[in-house]
Amino acid sequence: MAKQDRAIRTRQTILAAAAKVFEEHGYQAATITDVLNEAGVTKGALYFHFQSKDDLAQAVLAEQDQMLVAPTRPCKVQEVVDTTMLQAYRLQTDPMVRAGVRLTLDQQAIDLDRSGPFLRWTEVITGLLEEAQRQGELLPHVVLRETAEMIVGAFAGVQSMSQAISDYQDIGRRVAILLRHVLPNIVLPSVLVSVDLSATRGDTVYAEAVELRDAGVPAGSVA
Amino acid sequence: MAKQDRAIRTRQTILAAAAKVFEEHGYQAATITDVLNEAGVTKGALYFHFQSKDDLAQAVLAEQDQMLVAPTRPCKVQEVVDTTMLQAYRLQTDPMVRAGVRLTLDQQAIDLDRSGPFLRWTEVITGLLEEAQRQGELLPHVVLRETAEMIVGAFAGVQSMSQAISDYQDIGRRVAILLRHVLPNIVLPSVLVSVDLSATRGDTVYAEAVELRDAGVPAGSVA
Repeated sequence: MAKQDRAIRTRQTILAAAAKVFEEHGYQAATITDVLNEAGVTKGALYFHFQSKDDLAQAVLAEQDQMLVAPTRPCKVQEVVDTTMLQAYRLQTDPMVRAGVRLTLDQQAIDLDRSGPFLRWTEVITGLLEEAQRQGELLPHVVLRETAEMIVGAFAGVQSMSQAISDYQDIGRRVAILLRHVLPNIVLPSVLVSVDLSATRGDTVYAEAVELRDAGVPAGSVA
Repeated sequence: MAKQDRAIRTRQTILAAAAKVFEEHGYQAATITDVLNEAGVTKGALYFHFQSKDDLAQAVLAEQDQMLVAPTRPCKVQEVVDTTMLQAYRLQTDPMVRAGVRLTLDQQAIDLDRSGPFLRWTEVITGLLEEAQRQGELLPHVVLRETAEMIVGAFAGVQSMSQAISDYQDIGRRVAILLRHVLPNIVLPSVLVSVDLSATRGDTVYAEAVELRDAGVPAGSVA
């Protein structure tokens, strides 16, 4: 294994361990020593990749946004739906995504800047809505950034409610209901009629996204 | 002071202390001893009112729903708006409400049943929407419980985003934007046109609610 590959693997091992430790103890109570024990790496290896606990948490927060992107669609409103549904699906299945979302909503983590994921997701959704607007998919009154922020904030709460009530079993249904309440107010009816808003949309998109990633297709290619 | 008054006061002191301790340490790390130290009461006094840490947390969770109710309105959609905006306003100002919401979203608190507030708020909003439907304020397709659950879940996330980004400074604006995206899809346009959805609605409703409470007017009286 090349030296660089090994470094990337070690970094992933440490991140996965940090995700688990933050999830179990919360940000405030978690320590670097917990992460070292969980990862089974040396102090030197950890500090080679991460400077501090805050640095580790920021990396876990950033990780949830990466690695898997919904396929590009001709209809940009569908891509907004798919991006949202993919994240919902990953919450059910991916410990790193769960850990990132928990950290984001950890109001006890007062020393940690948790605004990053909210802002990054707002950028993603705003970008997609801009494209949708250019293609004439949106109603004329829509204020892109307000709508994007609202979708991101509402999603965070709906996932939390789903976690508290059903441990994510009903997240697909809940996110579909959220989108069904919001989209008719921002999307042209003639566009909306062709958008797939089913509760199981996340499963389909996830399978597609994994296939594209494994085939090495770069994010942003049209499916 | 009558014996009963004193007991109520002691209970409130303990609850306020518990709210502070849960907010600072999170549910998992908080201990009964922390609460005793913060409240300055005897162990006997605490255990007279609360059996366990879980019992204390449940009482803090229940407290956010009580004590202050939005005035009853002839237009039930306005009452939904007012109930939501009042809660947003109280998050800015009331430590007990903050503590309750933080506990509700504390995904580290794995031993604590955090579904209560989601379910109770869903009941409140469903009840108001039922009245709105009886009065002919809603569009015919609305599924009351789905809409109520969606509003409650989305509110939880929007408040969390506001807390992370602005420490609740922009919560009124964010909740108004949420409601502006959702209500046109469930309320008759002829009703919606008279609903006050301004970002400062919470301030007005809070002042009214405090006045009614201090005047001893029971909840449920028409304003």
